[in-house]
Amino acid sequence: MIVVMKRGASPEQIEHMIRRVEQLGLKAHPIYGTERTVIAAIGEKRDEFRQSLESGPGVAEIVPILAPYKVASREVKLDSTVVRVGSLVVGNCHLGVIAGPCSVENLEQTLTTARAVKAAGATALRGGAFKPRTSPYSFQGLKEEGLKLLAQASRETGLPTVSEVMTAENVELVARYVDVLQVGARNMQNFDLLREVGRIRKPVFLKRGLSATLEEFLAAAEYILAEGNSQVILCERGIRTFETATRNTLDLSVVPLIKELSHLPIVVDPSHATGKRSLVPPMAKAAIVAGAHGIMVEVHPDPEKALSDGPQSLTIPGFEKLMTEIKQINAFLGYEK
Amino acid sequence: MIVVMKRGASPEQIEHMIRRVEQLGLKAHPIYGTERTVIAAIGEKRDEFRQSLESGPGVAEIVPILAPYKVASREVKLDSTVVRVGSLVVGNCHLGVIAGPCSVENLEQTLTTARAVKAAGATALRGGAFKPRTSPYSFQGLKEEGLKLLAQASRETGLPTVSEVMTAENVELVARYVDVLQVGARNMQNFDLLREVGRIRKPVFLKRGLSATLEEFLAAAEYILAEGNSQVILCERGIRTFETATRNTLDLSVVPLIKELSHLPIVVDPSHATGKRSLVPPMAKAAIVAGAHGIMVEVHPDPEKALSDGPQSLTIPGFEKLMTEIKQINAFLGYEK
Amino acid sequence: MIVVMKRGASPEQIEHMIRRVEQLGLKAHPIYGTERTVIAAIGEKRDEFRQSLESGPGVAEIVPILAPYKVASREVKLDSTVVRVGSLVVGNCHLGVIAGPCSVENLEQTLTTARAVKAAGATALRGGAFKPRTSPYSFQGLKEEGLKLLAQASRETGLPTVSEVMTAENVELVARYVDVLQVGARNMQNFDLLREVGRIRKPVFLKRGLSATLEEFLAAAEYILAEGNSQVILCERGIRTFETATRNTLDLSVVPLIKELSHLPIVVDPSHATGKRSLVPPMAKAAIVAGAHGIMVEVHPDPEKALSDGPQSLTIPGFEKLMTEIKQINAFLGYEK
Amino acid sequence: MIVVMKRGASPEQIEHMIRRVEQLGLKAHPIYGTERTVIAAIGEKRDEFRQSLESGPGVAEIVPILAPYKVASREVKLDSTVVRVGSLVVGNCHLGVIAGPCSVENLEQTLTTARAVKAAGATALRGGAFKPRTSPYSFQGLKEEGLKLLAQASRETGLPTVSEVMTAENVELVARYVDVLQVGARNMQNFDLLREVGRIRKPVFLKRGLSATLEEFLAAAEYILAEGNSQVILCERGIRTFETATRNTLDLSVVPLIKELSHLPIVVDPSHATGKRSLVPPMAKAAIVAGAHGIMVEVHPDPEKALSDGPQSLTIPGFEKLMTEIKQINAFLGYEK
Repeated sequence: MIVVMKRGASPEQIEHMIRRVEQLGLKAHPIYGTERTVIAAIGEKRDEFRQSLESGPGVAEIVPILAPYKVASREVKLDSTVVRVGSLVVGNCHLGVIAGPCSVENLEQTLTTARAVKAAGATALRGGAFKPRTSPYSFQGLKEEGLKLLAQASRETGLPTVSEVMTAENVELVARYVDVLQVGARNMQNFDLLREVGRIRKPVFLKRGLSATLEEFLAAAEYILAEGNSQVILCERGIRTFETATRNTLDLSVVPLIKELSHLPIVVDPSHATGKRSLVPPMAKAAIVAGAHGIMVEVHPDPEKALSDGPQSLTIPGFEKLMTEIKQINAFLGYEK
Repeated sequence: MIVVMKRGASPEQIEHMIRRVEQLGLKAHPIYGTERTVIAAIGEKRDEFRQSLESGPGVAEIVPILAPYKVASREVKLDSTVVRVGSLVVGNCHLGVIAGPCSVENLEQTLTTARAVKAAGATALRGGAFKPRTSPYSFQGLKEEGLKLLAQASRETGLPTVSEVMTAENVELVARYVDVLQVGARNMQNFDLLREVGRIRKPVFLKRGLSATLEEFLAAAEYILAEGNSQVILCERGIRTFETATRNTLDLSVVPLIKELSHLPIVVDPSHATGKRSLVPPMAKAAIVAGAHGIMVEVHPDPEKALSDGPQSLTIPGFEKLMTEIKQINAFLGYEK
Repeated sequence: MIVVMKRGASPEQIEHMIRRVEQLGLKAHPIYGTERTVIAAIGEKRDEFRQSLESGPGVAEIVPILAPYKVASREVKLDSTVVRVGSLVVGNCHLGVIAGPCSVENLEQTLTTARAVKAAGATALRGGAFKPRTSPYSFQGLKEEGLKLLAQASRETGLPTVSEVMTAENVELVARYVDVLQVGARNMQNFDLLREVGRIRKPVFLKRGLSATLEEFLAAAEYILAEGNSQVILCERGIRTFETATRNTLDLSVVPLIKELSHLPIVVDPSHATGKRSLVPPMAKAAIVAGAHGIMVEVHPDPEKALSDGPQSLTIPGFEKLMTEIKQINAFLGYEK
Repeated sequence: MIVVMKRGASPEQIEHMIRRVEQLGLKAHPIYGTERTVIAAIGEKRDEFRQSLESGPGVAEIVPILAPYKVASREVKLDSTVVRVGSLVVGNCHLGVIAGPCSVENLEQTLTTARAVKAAGATALRGGAFKPRTSPYSFQGLKEEGLKLLAQASRETGLPTVSEVMTAENVELVARYVDVLQVGARNMQNFDLLREVGRIRKPVFLKRGLSATLEEFLAAAEYILAEGNSQVILCERGIRTFETATRNTLDLSVVPLIKELSHLPIVVDPSHATGKRSLVPPMAKAAIVAGAHGIMVEVHPDPEKALSDGPQSLTIPGFEKLMTEIKQINAFLGYEK
């Protein structure tokens, strides 16, 4: 870490900071520039002492050199992580397609969708039972009843399932019914939840927070990995910006960037990112070409009557058309499904 | 709610949407403009049917007229809510000053700070025992041990306490020791936690999320109010923007705006908003003049050795100086303490 | 436009606003809802009267129904605009590839790059002669001398050229040397410049501003179109968000969205959007699959010695590899070059 | 500047970068850390070589130590700049109040406003003659005719005037009529305009761009200062964020921060920042208490009939009330007017 002193810092302040660095067990390496002095602190234990040094007299700023994550880093594990659960294989050159309704509403809707997406080529079924909603007056999901319907659809189609868990308390309950536990964007820094899903032996589908930097996203994954669960799938689902023409702003550039920085697989959710049905197919295809290891898309047999996220849900024929195109792209890119 | 049809929407599509509005139990009121047709839907139950209608054929967009909150709204309750717990009185013309360390580190640090801020005029003591941290390798707080130290400092000084609760599961535990339960920025949309603190009989200090709109912030308060707990204090603590010169961007304009839209008290935290000690006093004073019902500031006897947030913590003399100025401003503004 | 009255608006205020709407030559259509009254104003002339009505007594907000652009809208012109200048054809099913150095530095660098990108399949040559730079102490471009070098490279290779014009005053000068005039992101709302390039008979390459909404972007194009120049190419080049891992955030979802809203061609610049060489090829390919009508990429024979934007410039072999992949994608997508 | 090498950088890459730094005339100072090597480059000429080094093999990132501005920095000039023109004195402990209509509409409106704001205590008159508008169909200002009306109002009241100049070409024209030339937010990085107003001998009122960082804002001021014009007034007028409840987000924390980093005076415009009349007085007062050297507010005799920005314009009685309060605050703060 680099301690940048202010231009006018006194020799005493510089001396003080050198001693502080050494008291923290680091090696201090001062460099006297033409306008400022900086002190390189070697042996750093990541973020740990940063704020402490930043409070020192005459200090302008601290520049960290190491990222706040380690196990998630490709520097530590060179080969790509592949997450496998039944027909869902995500990572390296494997592409997963997770499709299904935003919310599980009833048996018929869930089964109809599950069968249709399976037939079209999806490799996993999504469906929300616990729903985070901005307003307390919106539909909050069927809860355990929804999980049961999802599990039934899984048994009938053979598709593994992905569903959101909203609290540490419910991890065990959700894990009883579903194959992959989703941590939603609003919970990306719910650290108790992260630790709890880090302790189970099922894959975790971690969505990027609305205003999370890439570094915070990987640090959130690190919470799960640090507990011993290495089966983490990252998901870019759009960030919040000033632009309101789309529901969020899909930050697709993080796909190739995450592949450089981390060994974890990265999946894209164009449904939540765009919020508009017509934008989902082009962004799904763009995500795959950008290198995503999979996509998650919302599909509903009758979006106009969906209890949530109708405007961004593909119809079943719309999903079938997308899958035809994705298969062509995969063939073209040489991906295995 | 207003259903805006696309320019080229067909008479059949318009007719379809009128029927849809009526099927939802609303009264449809079509208006045929020079370029587009819009359908006003009267009798709306807030957000409920929005997405459903947005999915309809030929629909360009839905414009909601009502906000996603109701009990939090000043339209429903004209007189301002005042939250009182011991010496802390917040709301209407009462100003609360909540001061203390970012983290409770040990008895001496906690007691020293508590006595000093009490002497300087603070009306409540803050101190974190459960700490949300970006990296799993950063100090995570003393947990229950920290709550005990905080309670001891409260007994010795008579100051009521404010401390963060991070999960629904811990609400009971934290409530056993502290007077006001804080819901942190990262948990503003942790809906289970919101519901849980809505069920206790202690005031809740709700921090605005890093990327939460004002509407979402009030909708989060609504979750608590809807459970029956009317003692909610809102807190603006900076939002995330492109600007990195400060830790966050303090959105002070929401102070007078919240006072128009809601009856709930609004407090400002200039420590987290700016992240820089030197900016805390001017922004604390600005907040009060902008109409805030209080401030929350971090104070540490030796910020350079603080385990978290040292760079933004005031020293004890710094806090004393700020309190002298605040008292003058209060006298000037005619506030009661 | 919809005038939304406050919940407590008095009958007099409502009556006043109805009269105001009518005074402005619009037809007023009041709708009395369960909680609020709204007044639809029919015959609106876009933004014109919006602020005037918003100032009225008892008004909560004004909801515009029409966008601030008209000629740029697909509602007005259904068939897609195709811009053609020599080998550069952009729009509908034609894909343009504009490549070259960030800055024109000298004859050798310019010619080497021009020949290489031509050989690899580029259809136009880019090169900056007037450079907008954050600091007054950075390299500001070769100015007219740079334009001459660019023109020479164009003559030798037959590639049409794209170069930035920074002021209305210089439009004539730049137009003398280059085929397509670029308006940079920082000038997207330099309205005098927009009007001036609207008066020439050469195509304009309009980059989206760093914090411009899609609506403002199309309204900027409208300034050019309104002056009679219909040859406008839009360019998405990343917006400014909280994320600093990439130089900007590439907002790729606007590509299919612009194609719905406007008839103008939309090109993507992954070099400025990402700021990192390794991210340029995946995002260039993703842009094409998302439906972009072309890409603009920076190429330099020796990026390490480039006077600007070296870190995001492709090497010549890097560009050749990208073009091979793009040709395969084009064949796959059925695009004509 | 610090060259941070990648974790896996080879000895050859490190050696290469050391040589590159030395070729650029800087002194290279390598530091071999436990995980990475960094190379401090001493003698740096600010931004100049940054991108060049960033392109080198094995380089992870470049960390600049110096800001992209120098003359604007308080490190270079310790005493605060005070700008004086007639009754307008801004900087150090002098507070300027610049008030007037958004647009100059006609003689009566301009004179009425000028007399009223003068009587209430304003020290300068604002009024737009050249108006930047998002849509080409909105009112674009009276242009030179407007400047004449403004000059007439100035003669009658004795108030110095502030008005926007939108192009380098018009600097001379606007300077003929007005006392302080405003560079608007959309033109903050119109570098030709900055250079041109840098060459005149009148004060410049520089508004922060909608998405400009503090560093870019000061670098824009540096363009003016570098041309020899030291009379620059900075103006914070709100930045663009995800929040739409206010027109922009007033970033008040930059007021004390700019006072640390620069000697230039900083004024706040709460009218454009908030976009809502009722929020202007509290934010104007907050700005002054935060340490602003002045405020710019929009005032209109009949906001409901204003041709632009009516919703955020104070009425004359509203402005009078605000001035009464500001005088009390000034007395309280010990400011001279």
